[in-house]
Amino acid sequence: MRDFLPERMLLRQWVIGELRTVFESFGFEPLDTPAVEYAETLKGKYGEEADKLIYEFEDRGDRRVGLRYDLTVPLARVAATYPDLPKPFKRYQIAPVWRAERPQKGRYREFWQCDVDTVGSTSPLADAELVMVVTSVLDRLGFANYTVRINNRKILGALAEGLGVRGEAALALFRSLDKLDKIGAAGVRAELVQRGLSEATADRLFELVETSGSNEETLAGLRRRFQDAPRAIEGVAELEAIAAALGASGVGADRYRIDLSMIRGLDYYTGPIFETVVDEPKIGSISGGGRYDNLIGMFGRDLPATGVSLGFERVVDVMEELGLAPEHLARTVTQVLVTVFGPDTEAASLGIAAELRRAGVRTEVALTGDRIGKQLQYASRRRIPTVVIVGPDEVSRGVALVKDMATGEQRTVARPDLAGTLCKHYGSIT
Amino acid sequence: MRDFLPERMLLRQWVIGELRTVFESFGFEPLDTPAVEYAETLKGKYGEEADKLIYEFEDRGDRRVGLRYDLTVPLARVAATYPDLPKPFKRYQIAPVWRAERPQKGRYREFWQCDVDTVGSTSPLADAELVMVVTSVLDRLGFANYTVRINNRKILGALAEGLGVRGEAALALFRSLDKLDKIGAAGVRAELVQRGLSEATADRLFELVETSGSNEETLAGLRRRFQDAPRAIEGVAELEAIAAALGASGVGADRYRIDLSMIRGLDYYTGPIFETVVDEPKIGSISGGGRYDNLIGMFGRDLPATGVSLGFERVVDVMEELGLAPEHLARTVTQVLVTVFGPDTEAASLGIAAELRRAGVRTEVALTGDRIGKQLQYASRRRIPTVVIVGPDEVSRGVALVKDMATGEQRTVARPDLAGTLCKHYGSIT
Repeated sequence: MRDFLPERMLLRQWVIGELRTVFESFGFEPLDTPAVEYAETLKGKYGEEADKLIYEFEDRGDRRVGLRYDLTVPLARVAATYPDLPKPFKRYQIAPVWRAERPQKGRYREFWQCDVDTVGSTSPLADAELVMVVTSVLDRLGFANYTVRINNRKILGALAEGLGVRGEAALALFRSLDKLDKIGAAGVRAELVQRGLSEATADRLFELVETSGSNEETLAGLRRRFQDAPRAIEGVAELEAIAAALGASGVGADRYRIDLSMIRGLDYYTGPIFETVVDEPKIGSISGGGRYDNLIGMFGRDLPATGVSLGFERVVDVMEELGLAPEHLARTVTQVLVTVFGPDTEAASLGIAAELRRAGVRTEVALTGDRIGKQLQYASRRRIPTVVIVGPDEVSRGVALVKDMATGEQRTVARPDLAGTLCKHYGSIT
Repeated sequence: MRDFLPERMLLRQWVIGELRTVFESFGFEPLDTPAVEYAETLKGKYGEEADKLIYEFEDRGDRRVGLRYDLTVPLARVAATYPDLPKPFKRYQIAPVWRAERPQKGRYREFWQCDVDTVGSTSPLADAELVMVVTSVLDRLGFANYTVRINNRKILGALAEGLGVRGEAALALFRSLDKLDKIGAAGVRAELVQRGLSEATADRLFELVETSGSNEETLAGLRRRFQDAPRAIEGVAELEAIAAALGASGVGADRYRIDLSMIRGLDYYTGPIFETVVDEPKIGSISGGGRYDNLIGMFGRDLPATGVSLGFERVVDVMEELGLAPEHLARTVTQVLVTVFGPDTEAASLGIAAELRRAGVRTEVALTGDRIGKQLQYASRRRIPTVVIVGPDEVSRGVALVKDMATGEQRTVARPDLAGTLCKHYGSIT
């Protein structure tokens, strides 16, 4: 759990603004759900290992409740609870989630997720749109080197079935395979064997999920390999439709890769799945998601759905590490500090500050009662770019001194021109 | 705990944007703290009754933790934890807090607070600025009838002392008096008597806190009444300074009222206190706060501080009840729906949508594969103002039909002019 002091918050708020702009440009609308959900809502959706990471406690009235683990299950509850929502229901949510994990680099117990989901459409267009949202966000934030890995649980299911693994056992197999980045091939192999797979079968599995060649070649290869497995061919057709939609929308073929070794650990996926990795720095995936056509049904209403989640913390971490924060982003919100010379001129300083604010200039009044020298030091330390100085002399002459803190330049401005001058300099924020 | 569906979220997000603009116009900067704090951080700060409302549970590693009860105590922890923060440290935080209360109208277990605080200044200017923030916010949001009630704990302390009540007992007395709006004079009187006050003393207390007349008259009266009580006179002088600063900043005398019967229930206040009530609807206070010069000291660093909290839920509730939401606020984020005629024209529809988005127009593509009639019904139901229709005929002619959903008008636009036309209509959002 972390505190975000103002300088980092300014970057975080800017990123959130950019995300909202992109999400809304696709017609996704904001939704907010409570942080605290009934425990029964949260449990049994993510898989046994994830369930252990849910923060649980008693509400007043002794109902078991828990902090939300992600934003997908709350959405599924909402979609099932409000039947009148227009379909497709396209929503985004930018909010914290909680997991009782051991903290490590890039992982936190409280962290923000940015989720974009479409409920009520089975079309691969809905899946493709999520990949577009991710590439639009990353392009807009200045990410140069990233790949969206795309796979399909239907293909993986057929693949597991070919090895004689079905149902719950197949889900367990996916969870093991998903740890490839974390525990390596040897670790995954050991886990698979422990789960009852023969060593030969485990090796065969590794061979099967290896993908090379262009997206077209991979898709053509899959069509051949699964020609007698209708369920897998359904998955291949979905991937083909996604690739076609991405092409028609101007997403470059270098931005995504059909990759059978990308699994996603969660139990609830049923069709196309996505994950985004940045080449540098090595921080794991910064977005993941997929289709989950059966999850909402667990809340009593069958509705297809697909979604993607952006890991806000990792996006911001990468931006800070690669220096992607925009240069124009202010280091402080304050544009002008109005000094206070003493009790006799305080009213004049307050009047100027109120006028500047009405003109849309973000203005602080010195609050400390210090000498002017110290007030200037405060402005410099806070990186406030302009100081307006009003002493008894300025008050009697009907002027103010405007000091540019970067250059040290100082000029006298007539009181009636002050707001206009500074407003023009900073542009209106209102 | 409540879900906020898109239409209500659009209003909430708009209000948050307005609040941020006002807060930042005074130089307050954003801060974010975790929702989960150590239980020892939260407890013993608010008073015994409030402590019972804190949601508490075990973190992994068996440390007692709790959900934050307000945004003031986390700020106090931050101020004590980071000694290098420039002083005065002016921050705002807009975030949910949790209280295990029985739900009732205008009260929720999870609700958003908007806090503005200044740490490191003892100046009454810092207190006055918070009143200005509140009046600026309410004026900007269109509230016409509200009053900021202002009092001072130093005066209340002197008043209690005059009745022989000191220390902890005085705090308990304040907590009882604070319930006047909730349980009425008779209820408060009964509670005071139960706390050991004689009936005559309780009656005298009610007389003492009754305030009438203009702010100037009240202040002059207090000066006279407490001429021999230096601590109370300190409080009176602070109120005089606040009134002077408000006047110099253009806040009308009708916007605030010096009111000895306004108490604030929390234990940690030490000086000026504020509360804002709207005349209609009767919903209780929509903002409250005050000076708490000793709270940060409980975290090991003595720092004066003052702050105000706006009850976001009540502000939004009142806006909805009084119809203050701005007319221009969109009912949906989507500006344009591009229809999909069938598989053969899907690529054309996707290409148009991508181009419109690049031009800054918020654009959805129909995802359902329905007939055009149903796609138009969806647009109408979602209140999407414009639909772009592209069938095989339009594709071959290199045009698109643009339908205005409000008027039903439909015109043919050449494909190369489409983005320019719609972008001009909606203005760029980028």
